[in-house]
Amino acid sequence: MVVIPVKLPSQSYEVVIAAGGRYQVGSYLEKLSNIASDVPLLIVSNPKIWQLYGQDIQLALKKAGFKSAHCVLPAGERYKTLKTLQKIYDAALAHRLERRSTLIALGGGVIGDMTGFAAATWLRGINVVQIPTSLLAMVDASIGGKTGVNHPQGKNLIGAFHQPRLVLIDPDVLKTLPRREFRAAIAEVIKYGVIWDPQLFSQLEALPRLDDHRYISPEQLLEILERSCQAKVDVVTKDEREAGLRAILNYGHTLGHALESIGNYRLFNHGEAVALGMIGAGAIATALGYWSEAEEAAQLQLIQKAKLPTSISAKLDHSDIMTLLSSDKKVQGGQIRFVLPKGIGQAEITDQVPQDIIAQALAKLCSVVAT
Amino acid sequence: MVVIPVKLPSQSYEVVIAAGGRYQVGSYLEKLSNIASDVPLLIVSNPKIWQLYGQDIQLALKKAGFKSAHCVLPAGERYKTLKTLQKIYDAALAHRLERRSTLIALGGGVIGDMTGFAAATWLRGINVVQIPTSLLAMVDASIGGKTGVNHPQGKNLIGAFHQPRLVLIDPDVLKTLPRREFRAAIAEVIKYGVIWDPQLFSQLEALPRLDDHRYISPEQLLEILERSCQAKVDVVTKDEREAGLRAILNYGHTLGHALESIGNYRLFNHGEAVALGMIGAGAIATALGYWSEAEEAAQLQLIQKAKLPTSISAKLDHSDIMTLLSSDKKVQGGQIRFVLPKGIGQAEITDQVPQDIIAQALAKLCSVVAT
Ligand SMILES: NC(=O)c1ccc[n+]([C@@H]2O[C@H](COP(=O)([O-])OP(=O)(O)OC[C@H]3O[C@@H](n4cnc5c(N)ncnc54)[C@H](O)[C@@H]3O)[C@@H](O)[C@H]2O)c1
Ligand SMILES: NC(=O)c1ccc[n+]([C@@H]2O[C@H](COP(=O)([O-])OP(=O)(O)OC[C@H]3O[C@@H](n4cnc5c(N)ncnc54)[C@H](O)[C@@H]3O)[C@@H](O)[C@H]2O)c1
Ligand SMILES: [Zn+2]
Ligand SMILES: [Zn+2]
Repeated sequence: MVVIPVKLPSQSYEVVIAAGGRYQVGSYLEKLSNIASDVPLLIVSNPKIWQLYGQDIQLALKKAGFKSAHCVLPAGERYKTLKTLQKIYDAALAHRLERRSTLIALGGGVIGDMTGFAAATWLRGINVVQIPTSLLAMVDASIGGKTGVNHPQGKNLIGAFHQPRLVLIDPDVLKTLPRREFRAAIAEVIKYGVIWDPQLFSQLEALPRLDDHRYISPEQLLEILERSCQAKVDVVTKDEREAGLRAILNYGHTLGHALESIGNYRLFNHGEAVALGMIGAGAIATALGYWSEAEEAAQLQLIQKAKLPTSISAKLDHSDIMTLLSSDKKVQGGQIRFVLPKGIGQAEITDQVPQDIIAQALAKLCSVVAT
Repeated sequence: MVVIPVKLPSQSYEVVIAAGGRYQVGSYLEKLSNIASDVPLLIVSNPKIWQLYGQDIQLALKKAGFKSAHCVLPAGERYKTLKTLQKIYDAALAHRLERRSTLIALGGGVIGDMTGFAAATWLRGINVVQIPTSLLAMVDASIGGKTGVNHPQGKNLIGAFHQPRLVLIDPDVLKTLPRREFRAAIAEVIKYGVIWDPQLFSQLEALPRLDDHRYISPEQLLEILERSCQAKVDVVTKDEREAGLRAILNYGHTLGHALESIGNYRLFNHGEAVALGMIGAGAIATALGYWSEAEEAAQLQLIQKAKLPTSISAKLDHSDIMTLLSSDKKVQGGQIRFVLPKGIGQAEITDQVPQDIIAQALAKLCSVVAT
């Protein structure tokens, strides 16, 4: 078991990583003074995850004397809307949630973000506990208090900062996670290695394959989770409200978002797009002398080991990508902002990348030999 | 002109009360370092208020070099919903609001609450400036950062704390406020006198009539606004997140909410219900020896001078009221919580009121001679 403390001005809490932890959720909650045991908790999930793990959580809560109700939302990013949120509010009302009440998010980032936002806004803020079940939610979405839903015309435009009371990660549930989801999240893990933790980077280099949990031992997985969560915690602790540093978490995301959207979120999923974005940003970093060609190659190798895409089809129009890049949220004053690695384990934000270097990086992305 | 500083851990700002202040909004905003002048501001209002004062605000902004767009929402409490909120989000998107952007709420509490909530949640929090146009919004809703919308089954259930960057009060706009709205808000002014500011109470006692702004000189009105806003600021500053003290602002509201809801929000509006609630709580306070009969009578006199209701129709069922009281948000562990005055200018929260004393107070409410 690993416990990572998160100390923020707004709230302190722990990220607990424990194999089989889902069977102990009741006893973890018992220890928290903020979680009332005389009012029912409301578990929010989606049909598949509820079927797989709902009962485990319910029973674990019951064992510790907690009553619980549940609210099962339709699955998928396209349901991450104000309209679906209404279902959580309706359940909150039906089960008479009070200010002292607690929502439990049991699911991937979609469930986590919506449940977190519902908790941020029901009665102007109630408790939320995150039990992430996807690798992405474990190492990224569940930590740091960003919550929200999508606007029909843009992702995560509606939201709030609201820290959880506890993040409980049970690595065992990754066994049922679809492989493509696992691989996609590995892109974010590689990201942490590149921008923050050189030891994580080395650990990933030492592993034979990164494309499925089956090739990673429970001990290795625990260490990957620990280092990734710690990286996120470190950055968030230094910059809770995304005033500056936290933006380095967007490494690979400037170009990534453009690629996701140009492929209509189907051609590349988020992690795949981020992988490509890191390759692009990595090429820019090399061109600017931020890091060495060897370091760029080492990053590429990890991405290949995760069986993430390493090239974009020549059919995608470069000028479209450029247009999209310029309309990205991270553009300030017309200049595109990039997060660039300065060697392994460090990153810097800059809006001073010449257009031709961006164009070269895009060209390179088309020529990288895919595995 | 009066300036009341609000110093909160989360944000500091000023409440500016200035006759004709709406013509100066641009220069007030210019002085604030947080308000970007290179991105358009978005003014949110309702059709009537926009027609009356929209142009004043637009021109004042333009004079100071600000660009602005506007978004006009349907008027009325029944539109204070997630669905109407969507219109603000759509406008925010259409006008490409950024993190540095600012919403301006121009209207009563309904517009203020919705705009504040939209600002709290768009891009996880952008600036909001409150320009309250109703007396209630001036002395109550615009100050303190409570924002939100209603759930079909309950008021203000969905919301967030989000402090404004500035509250700009122009008393001159009260000239167009319907009289019933003015009177209703006077109930909250009387409330501040009773629970917080004995000098405000005396000032109100010295005035011949309280039922319309026409009977109150500009100087008197300015002082009433100043003292009321100061009372709200004092309480909010001591307890931003409503952990304790802030609950005294609910004086008259325990019973008030029950009466509002039993009359289907038509028989009594909010202020009228609060007036009745204060009479009820006043009677309880007398019965418990918290204050004197003379003090209870003095409060009643102010309520009468405001031409607010002082009795409830015998047709309203007492047991219904009791049931509603027990289901109120302020009930904890089955005991009804009351805010009770301890003399003029002080209040205390208690859940130790015997049932028969509550019943007596309700009976008294039916027998008070209406003016
Ligand atoms: N709040 C943040 O800081 C933050 C950070 C990154 C991403 N996000 C958000 O997270 C979302 C993406 O998260 P995601 O990748 O987890 O997507 P997701 O929640 O849609 O989960 C992916 C899929 O895996 C399934 N799944 C999850 N856990 C499973 C398990 N243990 N077994 C079987 N199936 C399982 C889900 O049902 C879903 O079909 C996006 O909406 C994104 O905006 C938020
Ligand atoms: N956030 C808080 O702390 C807080 C506190 C108290 C009340 N509230 C909320 O405030 C709302 C009630 O506010 P309200 O009483 O201002 O209601 P309101 O916003 O509906 O305004 C009342 C009526 O007066 C009109 N009006 C407002 N200003 C006018 C003017 N200058 N000239 C002509 N007409 C004008 C409005 O169009 C409306 O028809 C409720 O939704 C309540 O929940 C919030
Ligand atoms: Zn990401
Ligand atoms: Zn009120």
